[in-house]
Amino acid sequence: MVPYAKRRDSMNYIIDCMHKIMESLTNKDLISFGGGAPAREAYPIGLIGDLTQSIFGDEEKAIQALAYGATIGLPSLRKAVQDHLLVPNGIAANLDEIMITAGGIQGIFLVCKLYLDPGDVVLVESPTFIHAKLLFDSFEATCQSCAMDEDGLNIEDLESKIKKYHPKLIYTMPTFHNPTGISMSEEKRKRMAELAETYDVMILEDDPYSEIRYSGEKLKPIKAHTKSKNVIYANSLSKIFSPGARLGYLVADAAIMQELTEMKLAIDTCTNGLTQMICAEFFSGGHYPSHLRGLCDIYRSRRDVMQKGIDDHFPKGTKRTSPDGGYYIWVELPQGLDGRELLPAANEVVKITYGSGSDFFVEENHDGSQFLRFSFAGIEEAVIENAMAQLGSFFKSKL
Amino acid sequence: MVPYAKRRDSMNYIIDCMHKIMESLTNKDLISFGGGAPAREAYPIGLIGDLTQSIFGDEEKAIQALAYGATIGLPSLRKAVQDHLLVPNGIAANLDEIMITAGGIQGIFLVCKLYLDPGDVVLVESPTFIHAKLLFDSFEATCQSCAMDEDGLNIEDLESKIKKYHPKLIYTMPTFHNPTGISMSEEKRKRMAELAETYDVMILEDDPYSEIRYSGEKLKPIKAHTKSKNVIYANSLSKIFSPGARLGYLVADAAIMQELTEMKLAIDTCTNGLTQMICAEFFSGGHYPSHLRGLCDIYRSRRDVMQKGIDDHFPKGTKRTSPDGGYYIWVELPQGLDGRELLPAANEVVKITYGSGSDFFVEENHDGSQFLRFSFAGIEEAVIENAMAQLGSFFKSKL
Repeated sequence: MVPYAKRRDSMNYIIDCMHKIMESLTNKDLISFGGGAPAREAYPIGLIGDLTQSIFGDEEKAIQALAYGATIGLPSLRKAVQDHLLVPNGIAANLDEIMITAGGIQGIFLVCKLYLDPGDVVLVESPTFIHAKLLFDSFEATCQSCAMDEDGLNIEDLESKIKKYHPKLIYTMPTFHNPTGISMSEEKRKRMAELAETYDVMILEDDPYSEIRYSGEKLKPIKAHTKSKNVIYANSLSKIFSPGARLGYLVADAAIMQELTEMKLAIDTCTNGLTQMICAEFFSGGHYPSHLRGLCDIYRSRRDVMQKGIDDHFPKGTKRTSPDGGYYIWVELPQGLDGRELLPAANEVVKITYGSGSDFFVEENHDGSQFLRFSFAGIEEAVIENAMAQLGSFFKSKL
Repeated sequence: MVPYAKRRDSMNYIIDCMHKIMESLTNKDLISFGGGAPAREAYPIGLIGDLTQSIFGDEEKAIQALAYGATIGLPSLRKAVQDHLLVPNGIAANLDEIMITAGGIQGIFLVCKLYLDPGDVVLVESPTFIHAKLLFDSFEATCQSCAMDEDGLNIEDLESKIKKYHPKLIYTMPTFHNPTGISMSEEKRKRMAELAETYDVMILEDDPYSEIRYSGEKLKPIKAHTKSKNVIYANSLSKIFSPGARLGYLVADAAIMQELTEMKLAIDTCTNGLTQMICAEFFSGGHYPSHLRGLCDIYRSRRDVMQKGIDDHFPKGTKRTSPDGGYYIWVELPQGLDGRELLPAANEVVKITYGSGSDFFVEENHDGSQFLRFSFAGIEEAVIENAMAQLGSFFKSKL
């Protein structure tokens, strides 16, 4: 048998975690709070159907949608991202600093492909986004984690880890962090950008949830707080448009963007032309603001119901985060309850699944099994309400 | 400045070559025979518009198209590939041995990601597909080339290079090879499969052009000649459906496919759901045979006009291949003419561009500047006819 590349071995642990998540997602018998899929109601089917029909009614547009396109992305979609997603969030970027990617994950991948050699260190939050960790592992990078406070990454710990490990990359999700739902304070955002310049480290700011805010004051991305080349901004259009469209975007200094574009050229030539064009027309046609309001209304109610359900039904001593947006609530069970150990029984007895917190930590010695990640986005309110009551009773019965 | 990964340096040479190709493709003042884009007339716009409309008329289908999908691909498209593209070509593969990729290039990429460590050797044809070379470089692999005869790879040279270099991968495009248009004999296909087993090397068979055959007898892929796990079959749907749809497929032994699927999960989660669904309905609706006949009719005429133009107008002593399909004719200029050196003047004087043959060789000492690659697919017959006359006169004037 021809041996696989060394990187394969680095990926084993996370692959196993992700398989468990995938299995629970595709098991139709379970109510799943484990994944990160949007609500069924969140897809603007009629609108996308109409936009698509109008594209195929225009021969030039249709050919452009079906032909090879520029690696950096469709000009009209890059302009739409600039106008509707970057400028309103305080990010000043020229069009040659904006690339469309085939989903948000590809953006993170391209940054890895440009920067990471085997053995390079990536600093991540503790806990962190499991899929990003899988990517870092696939580049045989070493992840080191930094502590998180209630207002995001602990800056003192970050600085000491930078000094200790000389990382190439700091990976952070400052707004509605996955898995905790925590948002980083403005002050810390500024400090992070300064540290990246001081120590010449790249910050990879991953921001897929910031647009779907249900409460609280808007926070500008780290990228908006600095003109430094050391911050690369990655985002996804999966949560505000459609995951199946496989669209995301990167914002980076023009010279770095040129390099990232070449990495993308190497791996997949260009991004899907049809969904890029549909999405561009979705934004330029002015459909986004009302669509976003609709999304937030759905998710706000689901969040509220889930929070109340946890508070009303989970065992005494349970703690949880109170996210102002995004998909996730991070729950800490009281001592004596092990979320990872109880997951198979929760699947079996109450037919409910959740994210096992231990999967989101990269430290060798960290257990994290008292933590659970709940995604409230994909499930209707009445089901959430009932499920939280059942799961609360289940946990109480195990104390 | 944060240093880039080492792989960046390995990619410099090809990146420069590809930039030149890209520039010539986007220069509207030039008639370009340099790229590999389909004819404008090859896009079934009306049909794709109708199929899309019917998808958006069915809520369940529309949601499936817009939601996250399985990493290995949409079941209906994998079934369509099996029924309409694999079985008719003699490839017996189960559905768990078929993956949909985001374009043909991603298939090659995933095989690299699974197998290649820095320093691993990949055997390629001389000349070879420049984009595959870019991918191998991006994995810091070492390419070694094998001689080609008029009926494909020289098997004696291949065996001696296998013994000498102990490659992990042999990359080949046996049918309507890019850049030469050459097809490998059946006998050699069988021998290659045997050699891969004997020496335990993986063959990566890249087959984007075999469906578009204009003359001659059909040839079965290497993958159809063997049950060996050592052959992975990669294909693209860009040339027979749409490049902008970013669809391709891989066929591999189920255990290897499981590994390839995990690599894809890591890098981009899943492939575009909407274009997968449109393409599945294109095949299952029975539209493919007549569409393919239409494509072949367009390209056959263009090939014939180009061949006649070269024969009628190019300097005495010019040699060329006579491809039975695909996009490319490979031309060898008579002694004294250097295609690479003359390219800027051809752009300037006759406003025509072509592929410089030297870009397709991986050997350090190989020059190849007497070779030119002409793609006839994207240009109308009358334009080809006139351009060949002009270019012929231009070359004659330089003798």
